[in-house]
Amino acid sequence: LNEFSLIDNYFKCRNKSKTSQVKLSIGDDAAVVSCPPGHELVIATDTLVADVHFPATVGPADIGYKALAVNLSDLAAMGAEPSWALLNLTLPEFNDAWLNGFSDGLFELIDEYELNLAGGDTCRGPLNIGVTVAGWVPQNQALTRSGARVGDVVFVSGYLGDATMGLRLYCRDVASEISAEDKDYLLSRLHRPTPRVALGQRLLGLVTSCIDVSDGLMADAAHICEQSNVGMEIIIDNLPLSSAFKNASKDIDDLNLALAGGDDYELCFTCAKEQVGSIEKIAQGFDLPLAKIGMVNEQPDVRFIDANGDTWETPKKGYKHFD
Amino acid sequence: LNEFSLIDNYFKCRNKSKTSQVKLSIGDDAAVVSCPPGHELVIATDTLVADVHFPATVGPADIGYKALAVNLSDLAAMGAEPSWALLNLTLPEFNDAWLNGFSDGLFELIDEYELNLAGGDTCRGPLNIGVTVAGWVPQNQALTRSGARVGDVVFVSGYLGDATMGLRLYCRDVASEISAEDKDYLLSRLHRPTPRVALGQRLLGLVTSCIDVSDGLMADAAHICEQSNVGMEIIIDNLPLSSAFKNASKDIDDLNLALAGGDDYELCFTCAKEQVGSIEKIAQGFDLPLAKIGMVNEQPDVRFIDANGDTWETPKKGYKHFD
Repeated sequence: LNEFSLIDNYFKCRNKSKTSQVKLSIGDDAAVVSCPPGHELVIATDTLVADVHFPATVGPADIGYKALAVNLSDLAAMGAEPSWALLNLTLPEFNDAWLNGFSDGLFELIDEYELNLAGGDTCRGPLNIGVTVAGWVPQNQALTRSGARVGDVVFVSGYLGDATMGLRLYCRDVASEISAEDKDYLLSRLHRPTPRVALGQRLLGLVTSCIDVSDGLMADAAHICEQSNVGMEIIIDNLPLSSAFKNASKDIDDLNLALAGGDDYELCFTCAKEQVGSIEKIAQGFDLPLAKIGMVNEQPDVRFIDANGDTWETPKKGYKHFD
Repeated sequence: LNEFSLIDNYFKCRNKSKTSQVKLSIGDDAAVVSCPPGHELVIATDTLVADVHFPATVGPADIGYKALAVNLSDLAAMGAEPSWALLNLTLPEFNDAWLNGFSDGLFELIDEYELNLAGGDTCRGPLNIGVTVAGWVPQNQALTRSGARVGDVVFVSGYLGDATMGLRLYCRDVASEISAEDKDYLLSRLHRPTPRVALGQRLLGLVTSCIDVSDGLMADAAHICEQSNVGMEIIIDNLPLSSAFKNASKDIDDLNLALAGGDDYELCFTCAKEQVGSIEKIAQGFDLPLAKIGMVNEQPDVRFIDANGDTWETPKKGYKHFD
């Protein structure tokens, strides 16, 4: 089995997308893609390394799924419609079972979003998975981190901390205390994050800034503040926590998981007060909670307060994956 | 030093390109790029792994240069004009000297081609360098591997085998027999390949197929044959060999290096007989040899003949890098 038959057997043959924009896909020196008029290209890339981004024992289908999901999440944060992807796969060995599992997971999302796997590279070496995803956004409408304004309301989608709690369960096996249902839910949030692609596109024209929460809300909200030259006050009582998270949580310090654990892949965004009604309608339409968690103000940096407006002790910064 | 300051210090701050097409570069969830009207996007990606694509002892500036050069070579083979790049860099440690050297080499080519480093990803793990380069080609004009026709003439640019001979010198130190000048030349062809970007663009509209010779002429000419459903007869006496290659060559088996060694990053292309004059004029304009090495015919696969038309014993296939 050489590089070319590997690409053919596990990837090229599964490429079902009829995306007319991809004029030339896997098999030439480069891919050729046409650009829809009135649109701009949005392109994101992320690398996954074993024992850095996922425990080395995670199954290949979950790895393939997550490698694409985290990139789609970046496109979601820009409000883009995904169209095609590239895969840079470095493998220690040609392992049929691993490759089948990996491509199963990868193509589950490729097929869901009708993407074309337009190209990539496969070589031998320590496992390293680089995925690049590209999509389209109407001209000058991409959501960025730099448009938040004083007085804006801060929202976050879904629930925070589930993936990190799932990682705690996965690594330390403290699952006996919680139900199998809660455990399954938390592990699925760890291994199969949901990129909020439809939500991101729906937010075009309504919000002033947007970011995907990959490093934890504390760090990612700070990115919006830095790039928008504003500050934020986040009400910790308003942070959206799932019932599974609460059931698995042991003490108040676990709130750090929800703020600094990362791997949430939810969207954090800001909008003018006048848009809050529109955002709340969107939440109903999507059956996805969109929590109002704070306000944008002038004082730099992100501060946390409780429901009474008292300052909440800043949680530990720099909580690392796989502590 | 964290991921963000690393990106700022070694990469973002050096990004000088004024490419108006890159609307949003390093620093958001994704890059945003506008598409020039009447053009298509051409995108190529290649991973470099230590001791697979280069000896682990190679200096970081040469690694940075080569990681981009091999990708630009893929764009050259499509006739595209390079515009922007992405870098996926997995590093075992934050080493200032290594990062300075690597970005020096990378930006030497980024600056030469006035590219914008539009995004990427940096993380910790075994050294792995993924570079993605994108550019533009006028609509429906991209050069591909699939257009060669029976009766076409086969050309190759530059000289073959220099990089592989350079690798032999680098790894086995048999350099005492050849001059320092020849050695320097062969090593520079190994570490700093020249992507034939201007040549590729000049060939638009003139040639029927094109590929960059990265795996050796034997393998890459076969790709054109497969995808064009034709065969080729290559005249071994016409293969372009540099004087340094000949000086370093020990026996006739060394011709295998020129045919199967790889890492040449020259363009192999086919054109109708009527275009041969135009191609030869281009060669003069570029001061780059363009050798007529064979003909396209109906019998599948690539065959080698000598100047008398006698079949030349097929050289060993599958000569591996770093034998």
